Amino acid sequence: MITLDPETEGVALAASLVDAFSVSGAEGELADAVQAALVRQPHLTVDRDGDAVVARTSTGRPQRVVLAGHLDTVPAAGNFPGRRSAGVLYGLGSCDMKGGVAVALRLAATLTDPARDVTYVFYDGEEIEEQRNGLRRLAEKHRDWLAADLAVLMEPSGATVEAGCQGTLRVVVAATGRRAHSARSWTGVNAIHEVVPVLERLAAYAPRRVDVDGLEYREGLNAVRIAGGVAGNVIPDRCEVTVNYRFAPDRSLDEALAHMREVFDGYAVERVDGAPGARPGLDEPAVAAFVAAVGAAPRPKYGWTDVARFAALGIPAVNFGPGDPEFAHTVDEQVPEEQIVDCERRLRSWLTT
Amino acid sequence: MITLDPETEGVALAASLVDAFSVSGAEGELADAVQAALVRQPHLTVDRDGDAVVARTSTGRPQRVVLAGHLDTVPAAGNFPGRRSAGVLYGLGSCDMKGGVAVALRLAATLTDPARDVTYVFYDGEEIEEQRNGLRRLAEKHRDWLAADLAVLMEPSGATVEAGCQGTLRVVVAATGRRAHSARSWTGVNAIHEVVPVLERLAAYAPRRVDVDGLEYREGLNAVRIAGGVAGNVIPDRCEVTVNYRFAPDRSLDEALAHMREVFDGYAVERVDGAPGARPGLDEPAVAAFVAAVGAAPRPKYGWTDVARFAALGIPAVNFGPGDPEFAHTVDEQVPEEQIVDCERRLRSWLTT
Repeated sequence: MITLDPETEGVALAASLVDAFSVSGAEGELADAVQAALVRQPHLTVDRDGDAVVARTSTGRPQRVVLAGHLDTVPAAGNFPGRRSAGVLYGLGSCDMKGGVAVALRLAATLTDPARDVTYVFYDGEEIEEQRNGLRRLAEKHRDWLAADLAVLMEPSGATVEAGCQGTLRVVVAATGRRAHSARSWTGVNAIHEVVPVLERLAAYAPRRVDVDGLEYREGLNAVRIAGGVAGNVIPDRCEVTVNYRFAPDRSLDEALAHMREVFDGYAVERVDGAPGARPGLDEPAVAAFVAAVGAAPRPKYGWTDVARFAALGIPAVNFGPGDPEFAHTVDEQVPEEQIVDCERRLRSWLTT
Repeated sequence: MITLDPETEGVALAASLVDAFSVSGAEGELADAVQAALVRQPHLTVDRDGDAVVARTSTGRPQRVVLAGHLDTVPAAGNFPGRRSAGVLYGLGSCDMKGGVAVALRLAATLTDPARDVTYVFYDGEEIEEQRNGLRRLAEKHRDWLAADLAVLMEPSGATVEAGCQGTLRVVVAATGRRAHSARSWTGVNAIHEVVPVLERLAAYAPRRVDVDGLEYREGLNAVRIAGGVAGNVIPDRCEVTVNYRFAPDRSLDEALAHMREVFDGYAVERVDGAPGARPGLDEPAVAAFVAAVGAAPRPKYGWTDVARFAALGIPAVNFGPGDPEFAHTVDEQVPEEQIVDCERRLRSWLTT
């Protein structure tokens, strides 16, 4: 059984969270511990759905904000349990995102009378297929639990504000041919040779750099997989290129798909999966006030996060949490301890003034 | 146990050979039956090595010829056992090459006093990796068993003479890059995009058409496989193209490899496998006499066969056997019965005059 003391110092709390195994699908025990720690707090109302725990203050403030973090991690890679060394907390989930979860838990337990009402959301299934995402489930089943004027997703962002996020779309572009024996190749049509214009368009593509709400969003269009071939002596009749389009949040997912059909005109383009981006929303008063209060120059988010899910619900959302996102999902996952302390300090200051 | 009567009529003998299962590696029972049928013949000396059976006449003629055929087949594909219908023999191995084996067996059993001494070679392991090829083993262990002035390989050639054969070379051409998260693709180098010039050179390549000993040999240069990709959100750091070069027999294998390094200059080129071709040798007296005797206009062989192995031993060799090579290794493998009869008639006429 996992026991958490959310009133303990932030880094120690983060370390005990790292040592609480919670790979996606096995978050139950940690969710139990989070729930047990929060129900003890008289200033919080606690709800639970599956392995998601939602706690809220209800002090009647004019503004309500969400602080959200996922409890699950990717599979271990020899980096469980964690360890502390020279001001750095190492281990599975330290960066993505138990450092952020520790900050939110501390604030939930200790901020008994915030200047803004707060809804703390701890959820499951973020690191796996989208259908099992706990925030998605909450949005579908308990939309009211998530009501807020602003959401802060405590994903690692180097303790600065990463506003909005890119959208992502994967499509398969296929070229076709006609099989033949390679000794008589002139009787066939080689699909791998036919795919050349697809790759030429990719290699020549000039990705946009777009100003969205004052932040420069860079796009990317890349082949992430190519596959073709039947046997060593056969002219192949099919070659598939999987293309990943990371697009700025001024485009919708439908617009992104239309753009792919335009770029690969003349070829079969099949959608594999995709998720819309989220605009930074720096012109939203709640976002602007948050950025001013935490005192960090906002950056664009080069990646996709659940801020897009809040954006789709009409709730402005930003990423703000300890840890360099480059360390997420790596063997040497880590978070600087001072960023944990720093994030908590700045959020506490914002929530109490 | 398989029993063969090589004195039975040719098509019936071919049909019984098709019904004798002998996928590569499981030729033993058929080799036993072939050996048993031949040792009964007083005019033949029979040797065996593994599942290869070699029988020869020794009448002291000035010329010795080899008639050779492999006993093994590719795996069954719902086409075993065989059947006869409307003048066609269908089934696994019917075309490649039990029709030809039936002709050779008939001649071995019935030509008791040929005008040319004949060595009949029935061998194993032709349809699998080169290291297990029975003719290769005989050439290494029993070079003297194969001594001859001319070899006729009874591979399907539409009952006409296919002289010489193409060489074949497979190389892997690789492009490299640097991994990165696809959301920040500008921090990496995409190996799939880097491979574009390789495919452009392939698509633009003008294959040679070369006159070799009076026959036009066509070449082919083709990608037979392409593979690259790490994960749906990762810029890949390696992309490999497997290229098959089918080259005219005026080039050696080393020259073919040098040509690949020239075509793909600037990229890593790694040899996978290869086999030299064989010149048609129509200017060799033994080949010219054979072509004149069987009365068929010779064609080039678009494909690789064991004639190249005889050529490497310094023995002129041609392909001459019943069946359209396009049906080899297909579900509806078949051989026209009249080609079996025709090949036997023409070989018998040549061997007795």
